[in-house]
Amino acid sequence: MKLLNDRNIMIIGLGLMGGSYAKALKRLDMHIMAIDTNPDTIEYALDNGIIDEGFTLPDAGALGRADIVIFALYPNVFKKWIADNQKYLKSGAIITDVTGVKSYIVYDIQAILRDDVEFIAAHPMAGREVYGVQNSTEKMFRDANFLVVPTDKNTPEAIEWCKELGRLLGFINVSVLSPEEHDKMIGFVSQLTHCIAVALMTCSDSTHLADYTGDSFRDLTRIANINDDMWSELFLLNKEPLLADIDRFIEEMQTMRSLLADEDREGLREKMRLSTQRRAAFNKK
Amino acid sequence: MKLLNDRNIMIIGLGLMGGSYAKALKRLDMHIMAIDTNPDTIEYALDNGIIDEGFTLPDAGALGRADIVIFALYPNVFKKWIADNQKYLKSGAIITDVTGVKSYIVYDIQAILRDDVEFIAAHPMAGREVYGVQNSTEKMFRDANFLVVPTDKNTPEAIEWCKELGRLLGFINVSVLSPEEHDKMIGFVSQLTHCIAVALMTCSDSTHLADYTGDSFRDLTRIANINDDMWSELFLLNKEPLLADIDRFIEEMQTMRSLLADEDREGLREKMRLSTQRRAAFNKK
Repeated sequence: MKLLNDRNIMIIGLGLMGGSYAKALKRLDMHIMAIDTNPDTIEYALDNGIIDEGFTLPDAGALGRADIVIFALYPNVFKKWIADNQKYLKSGAIITDVTGVKSYIVYDIQAILRDDVEFIAAHPMAGREVYGVQNSTEKMFRDANFLVVPTDKNTPEAIEWCKELGRLLGFINVSVLSPEEHDKMIGFVSQLTHCIAVALMTCSDSTHLADYTGDSFRDLTRIANINDDMWSELFLLNKEPLLADIDRFIEEMQTMRSLLADEDREGLREKMRLSTQRRAAFNKK
Repeated sequence: MKLLNDRNIMIIGLGLMGGSYAKALKRLDMHIMAIDTNPDTIEYALDNGIIDEGFTLPDAGALGRADIVIFALYPNVFKKWIADNQKYLKSGAIITDVTGVKSYIVYDIQAILRDDVEFIAAHPMAGREVYGVQNSTEKMFRDANFLVVPTDKNTPEAIEWCKELGRLLGFINVSVLSPEEHDKMIGFVSQLTHCIAVALMTCSDSTHLADYTGDSFRDLTRIANINDDMWSELFLLNKEPLLADIDRFIEEMQTMRSLLADEDREGLREKMRLSTQRRAAFNKK
């Protein structure tokens, strides 16, 4: 496996996710380099042995030594970063990423990328409600899903390499999806759920109810604590699938409302039984 | 405290909640009696030392010995049970309950109840996605909220007694609310959240996505595994507050939809920041 032979890793953006990759790969004795514009982040990561080398600007020499480049910044800056810095990359390097939208970036990046470098997209479906390298931990990969998102331009070797990366990082489940399948799926299971949690918090000021709530409200709104910078970008970059999901969900809420208004108890029970039956598929094995 | 002096407890309905009350009160050396129509339930509870005496029908002698009666069945059968069986109760007995809607039952029960017996309503806001005495556990009261729901008919002594009950059961927080305040609050934090979770599962068949989901979808739909018999009844008995909550929530989802359709990133970010700010109040202390 390339991953186990080529040991120089460069992480672009050392936040929660970049830091967690660093910790997981460091445990495999990789040589970890990182670029982050915040000098405190680099200092913290060096002091705590999370990385071996750190930079606050793209370093031509370090980039030229990287076998593997992991892009862990927001999608909007990805294309520009590649355009500006791909000239420094070593021939044969592999680039992967962690971004939560794919159609918007994968084709464009692959179109502008040098022929002797390969970009294989990935989405580690793990997260926490806290930020920064200080909160990074490989533990968040346990029990989580890792998605490899190739296009026709990717080589079978890179796809296999990326699947291996997911397994080595410690993800319990590694799957392969096209960029379109990925974005449709993520619109539903991730972005729609965040939109719902936000709307539930913003539709009415419930903060005075904090002492009265059960776990259901807490669980449902855990993700209402949201990074507005990142998530507003993810929403906009996946606008069409997400709009369709929101419409489908609102329509179903209206159906539930009608059943209740009509006091159609059997109709409500049918919905609840279907819900229970489908939810069973999501119980962790 | 009456609770610590009068030690004969009668639990009506030995399910998840009744069983958990039994276990918590047994630890305080109370004498626990229970009535449940299912003979297997009674046998299990006796065999496992959860109760001291068990009955499958209202037992006049046992009811006459009870200092405290805990009604742990569905709201619809509560009134009839009182009408049929209150004649057996000891003078001076206290009745409390666990039901999740209050206006619908509290006034009616207090109106028909004998003058020498007092009903003080309560709502233990704890639950699990499993049922039955076999799954009962006092642990579900830890970190949970206990609501005492008195009316003008209740004595200060009974209100104090019921608050003490919540504390002795192990609840972290005990509050007092009127039936109307309770139902308005519960419509929002409990019934609306269950309605949302059900609609998210039923609006589209997502079961093939189980391998791709992150924790956000799992957390949000945990309560989509729902007891249709109990929850359809709770929805209908709290119809007006819940309809108003559903309308408010749908309206907010439509606002989020418009912000996204208009690509109003700043508007989305404002909603997300408000959401994050409000959610902070719900972090467990």
